Amino acid sequence: MNLSPNYRPAEQAQLENFGVDWVVLYEFGDLDPSKAIEEFESLVQDLQEANLEAQVRHGHGASLLVFIKVPRHHLGNLVHQSRIKDWLYGIIHEIPAGDEQTIADAETPAEALRSVYHAVTWKKSLGGAHITPKHGKWKNIASAFPLHDQAANAELLRKWSRTILLTAEDLDSIRALFGEKVAFYFAFIQSYSSFLVFPAGWGMVSWWCWGSYSIPFALGNCLWAIVFVEYWKIRETDLALRWQVKGVGALKVTRAKYVWDKEIRDPNTGEMVQYFSPYRQFIRQLLLVPFALVASLALGGLIVVTFALEVFISEVYTGSLKGYLEFLPTVIFSLCLPSISGLLTSIATRLTKYENYRTQDQYDLAQTTKQFVMHFITAFLPTLLTAYAYVPFGAKLIPHMSLRGESANLTRDFHIDPGRLKQEVIYLSLTGQVLSFGEEIVLPYFKRIALQKWREYRKQHATAQHRRQVSQATNQVLLDDPDESAFLARVRNEAEADEYNVHEDTLEMCVQFGYLTLFGASWPLVALGFLINNWLELRGDFFKLSLECQRPPPIRADSIGPSLQGLEVLSWLGALSTAAIVYLYRDGKVEIRVSSLLLTLLLAEWAYLAMRFAVSTGLRKILSGTLQREAAKRYAMRKKYFQATASEGSPPRGKLRVRFRDRVSVYTSATDPPSPQSDEMLHEATLDSERRFWSGASSVLDDGVRIIRALGKTSQKAEKEL
Amino acid sequence: MNLSPNYRPAEQAQLENFGVDWVVLYEFGDLDPSKAIEEFESLVQDLQEANLEAQVRHGHGASLLVFIKVPRHHLGNLVHQSRIKDWLYGIIHEIPAGDEQTIADAETPAEALRSVYHAVTWKKSLGGAHITPKHGKWKNIASAFPLHDQAANAELLRKWSRTILLTAEDLDSIRALFGEKVAFYFAFIQSYSSFLVFPAGWGMVSWWCWGSYSIPFALGNCLWAIVFVEYWKIRETDLALRWQVKGVGALKVTRAKYVWDKEIRDPNTGEMVQYFSPYRQFIRQLLLVPFALVASLALGGLIVVTFALEVFISEVYTGSLKGYLEFLPTVIFSLCLPSISGLLTSIATRLTKYENYRTQDQYDLAQTTKQFVMHFITAFLPTLLTAYAYVPFGAKLIPHMSLRGESANLTRDFHIDPGRLKQEVIYLSLTGQVLSFGEEIVLPYFKRIALQKWREYRKQHATAQHRRQVSQATNQVLLDDPDESAFLARVRNEAEADEYNVHEDTLEMCVQFGYLTLFGASWPLVALGFLINNWLELRGDFFKLSLECQRPPPIRADSIGPSLQGLEVLSWLGALSTAAIVYLYRDGKVEIRVSSLLLTLLLAEWAYLAMRFAVSTGLRKILSGTLQREAAKRYAMRKKYFQATASEGSPPRGKLRVRFRDRVSVYTSATDPPSPQSDEMLHEATLDSERRFWSGASSVLDDGVRIIRALGKTSQKAEKEL
Repeated sequence: MNLSPNYRPAEQAQLENFGVDWVVLYEFGDLDPSKAIEEFESLVQDLQEANLEAQVRHGHGASLLVFIKVPRHHLGNLVHQSRIKDWLYGIIHEIPAGDEQTIADAETPAEALRSVYHAVTWKKSLGGAHITPKHGKWKNIASAFPLHDQAANAELLRKWSRTILLTAEDLDSIRALFGEKVAFYFAFIQSYSSFLVFPAGWGMVSWWCWGSYSIPFALGNCLWAIVFVEYWKIRETDLALRWQVKGVGALKVTRAKYVWDKEIRDPNTGEMVQYFSPYRQFIRQLLLVPFALVASLALGGLIVVTFALEVFISEVYTGSLKGYLEFLPTVIFSLCLPSISGLLTSIATRLTKYENYRTQDQYDLAQTTKQFVMHFITAFLPTLLTAYAYVPFGAKLIPHMSLRGESANLTRDFHIDPGRLKQEVIYLSLTGQVLSFGEEIVLPYFKRIALQKWREYRKQHATAQHRRQVSQATNQVLLDDPDESAFLARVRNEAEADEYNVHEDTLEMCVQFGYLTLFGASWPLVALGFLINNWLELRGDFFKLSLECQRPPPIRADSIGPSLQGLEVLSWLGALSTAAIVYLYRDGKVEIRVSSLLLTLLLAEWAYLAMRFAVSTGLRKILSGTLQREAAKRYAMRKKYFQATASEGSPPRGKLRVRFRDRVSVYTSATDPPSPQSDEMLHEATLDSERRFWSGASSVLDDGVRIIRALGKTSQKAEKEL
Repeated sequence: MNLSPNYRPAEQAQLENFGVDWVVLYEFGDLDPSKAIEEFESLVQDLQEANLEAQVRHGHGASLLVFIKVPRHHLGNLVHQSRIKDWLYGIIHEIPAGDEQTIADAETPAEALRSVYHAVTWKKSLGGAHITPKHGKWKNIASAFPLHDQAANAELLRKWSRTILLTAEDLDSIRALFGEKVAFYFAFIQSYSSFLVFPAGWGMVSWWCWGSYSIPFALGNCLWAIVFVEYWKIRETDLALRWQVKGVGALKVTRAKYVWDKEIRDPNTGEMVQYFSPYRQFIRQLLLVPFALVASLALGGLIVVTFALEVFISEVYTGSLKGYLEFLPTVIFSLCLPSISGLLTSIATRLTKYENYRTQDQYDLAQTTKQFVMHFITAFLPTLLTAYAYVPFGAKLIPHMSLRGESANLTRDFHIDPGRLKQEVIYLSLTGQVLSFGEEIVLPYFKRIALQKWREYRKQHATAQHRRQVSQATNQVLLDDPDESAFLARVRNEAEADEYNVHEDTLEMCVQFGYLTLFGASWPLVALGFLINNWLELRGDFFKLSLECQRPPPIRADSIGPSLQGLEVLSWLGALSTAAIVYLYRDGKVEIRVSSLLLTLLLAEWAYLAMRFAVSTGLRKILSGTLQREAAKRYAMRKKYFQATASEGSPPRGKLRVRFRDRVSVYTSATDPPSPQSDEMLHEATLDSERRFWSGASSVLDDGVRIIRALGKTSQKAEKEL
């Protein structure tokens, strides 16, 4: 199984990146220059102690860009050590060949970068430099990130703009560039979008034949949701095995902020293990219940009030300025929402910190779960209110809301519009998707452009002043070498870009799935809209990831995380909601019999439970191939090993791989063959600039100190002048 | 972790069993003697080809007892091979030290016997003798079984009669004697009985304070059921890891009756794999749905008719003979039930055969699932009818059943007794348990005694005739050696004993659990009754297993099988049923509002789902120790291995174990120290008889042929004469 297809034989990406593995952005605008110099010296020393090479340039404003490079032989050994660790923890089954000095060839850029990441961030006792951005000693380090492989990103984006579906190789490429955690998101959106074809097609047929609220579409939609969730569970395991990350959570290192009760020696491994009572942690986790209640009440209350006001104004109020007043509650709500959910998020973060998870993974998972709960409430509650309170019971409720005196003559000519649910679903699902796409991708793009222009303007304005103030040596340091200027400009932009949050994108897809399962029955064409949206969304997300965000550290994961539970809950709620919507709206009935509604719900729930059991059993049966293949592979591996030891008396050590060349190979497309001659020349030229870049005239320390002195003063002065 | 505690240092059990590993009962009553001789010769040849020693004696009637002994060095090698296979399939993580000729020491008698079992039953291509009782070539072999270790069994039974709870060591002892499949049942009944203490205590408190149908008991009972099921899931994994049987299903050999589409070469292992489309199998499995419908209708219909007739007679009929007629429907039902469920079982067996499972495990699982469905219907439907149809709606339904003319005056003085549900639960749960205990254990005991007496009587009657007819040599063969006679008498009894069916016993416990969760609210003391019953049941089952059944082949399993799903379904149904019973019966209300009943059910179901999620998350968190220990163990093992290879260049092969002595060690109690002197003498004496037993005057073949000739004729003549 070749998981790293079509890598460029030359090491173009590293060349374009001047051989830089990692970049640290150190900001000292708020600091005393002497303090900043002290910290910077300590940073360089830490890096050098961890066997990392460093180089320094100035960033935007009062900041330093510290470039980190791991010597190739050291990196190769780190990769090998990391594989040994994988084997020890049972993530991979084949023991990596070699001894302690072995230098391994990274299979993908992500694997190499992961080792760089470990070398930079791990504790010194584990052999890292312990650079922890925004935390403890390094709270002035604004970010630390690897550089994008621009050519590979552009190539992937270009390829996808011409195709409809992502292939398995595309997913492998994402994994090779960004690591498994990001790749799992793209695998998810791809599987989900492919599955959307069914409800889109069936929705069109149903809409044509039966219109909205039809039973056939409702049944098909619910069944589809169950099948998709069960399929994804298997697919996820499949991918985790393919990418060899199954159970990878076990070997993650301890978070810097983890607090433990005591350290005990594990009787089996003989190593010190930090122990924190799981019982106490569980008790702390139970605080989630009051938190969820408070969050629900706060958000729910706000939504109910807004909704009631809106209904009141639009349906009952007849005074002046009605056209504007109608929007007032929503506007107020939108204005309040950020601060309320900000408050809730900060409570959630404190809770998560208090729950004290050992690894960053577990911490993220717990935090994301809480955000999911809040997100689901804000996303679905308004529509749920429309569907189950306003339309069915509105005719009874609204008259009570009007002023006493007027109620008599209002009640008579008041009637509820049952089309409101459909309208709301259409608006929220489709318009909402388009708007969020703009907000998420288009807006930041223009913001970035504008910021860049502003910087350039300010720079030109300020240069003249610099000239006068700083010494010749410092000046040389502050002016970019023409060879490097394009590269440095790019790095400065990346340094200020946002971090990519894969959970947010996953969550967005879950919300979409939720709309479809909960309210899809009210307008069967909604899935078609989602299908079209997702074609764009996938590419937009990759665009955002590769051009508007920092390249994320290639973290491993074996699942899309808590979203999976979210999907399960949504498919269950979906079955209930669909049953209720179809029951309430199908005949446009006036009178609702509670007992038959409840019976419908109960039957829908039983049908859901039965179907889920059947589908999960059936799918696991039919798609059992992967797990069997995995077992067969392990069997074959052990058999080979056994036969070898039986005949030779020593295990097959595998032939030692050739020491890999001075760079990590990266992605290229087979459709884009490099022209050897020009390539060669370019190669030489770039190598030259790279050599110059790493071996500057003076030492890293001197350069950095000079920049801090220059910018620490100039920026403060420049700011005063502007 | 010492899993084989307190084994007797001497090899007493094997001595008492004359070194016999396995016994085959060959019956030739219906056969022509020449045909029988042919088959017997083939049997002995097959055994010898598989390196097994054989000896022969006559059984009860026209039957041969073929004693099989696996030479110790061969057995030791088989044990080693089996461990290698375990390792190859990933069941154990440590590679067994040694090469192809290694002779391993079995850790428990069960492990040794399992290898004997494989040697006797496996296909010749796998190195076995392919003796398949009642199937194909060997349809005249009535049974094949190992001999009981009487002393160990008696010791365990004695120990348990003095204690309340089984300890972990007791479970390990059962595992050591009977294998994991049986041990899992005893672990289950032990965990379940310990858990019963809570509902028993809470039931007494509730009964004292609030009487029947109280909400506190209902809540406690449902929660208890959820906690127990989730706890057992973890406990099961725990035991599977402790006994090193996790995932053991994968290495089971193919059933003799398995039909495959094609044989394909596995690309990973390079071995031939028999392939049967999982898709086709799933389609075939779907036939379960119509089968379940038919079974439900057949059994349900019968139960409803019986029930209706009974109610009609007892409440409406006023003619003569009422006292007797009242019982008539139940009597007729009881008479019909065996033939109907026999028919359904035969359909179920055909279905399971058609579903074509590769291993015996999967086959058993599918068959048991079907039997569960039938069993649950017969066990619970009558009570369900009483609870939800007869008592609440009886007053409306019954009058319609009476004859037209009489209905007018009957309706007036007719009223339903709401205490009927409680009575029925008391009767079915408690009386039923006592009766089934008698039926299961006491009755067979007396039957066995009676049969033995009858045999002795007939034997004395027939001996005189034999004397005249058979030659001196044959006579010698037919008469037991005084040394062996006690042993042979025991073996003859064991040969005719029933096979132990562990699924039936597990099922019985599930039905009990079902009564408690479904109807426990109607009489809170029911759990107390169950608790007392189970103390007896556990010992009774072990009594049955060790004295009234053949020793089962020590098959491995990593779970109690499909019963687990049964328990989950029952805890879910229990939540619904308890809610409904409490709602219907608590206030003795006359009028039932359907909408509030449905709302109660819906809320109960949601509460159930939420609680199950919380309990399972919480328990998994708190009891996560085992899995972590397992991971730590694997880590330690790999670490050791890695360090060893790194320093020496070859893996640690472990020191070769000393060739184990000529016997397998067995269970003894520490409270019962053997007196060395008398032991020694006994030892020598028994060894002598054993040596004589295995090295008879003439060859096995001659002996067998002579017995067949003698008994083939004599038995037919004797039967004519009797």
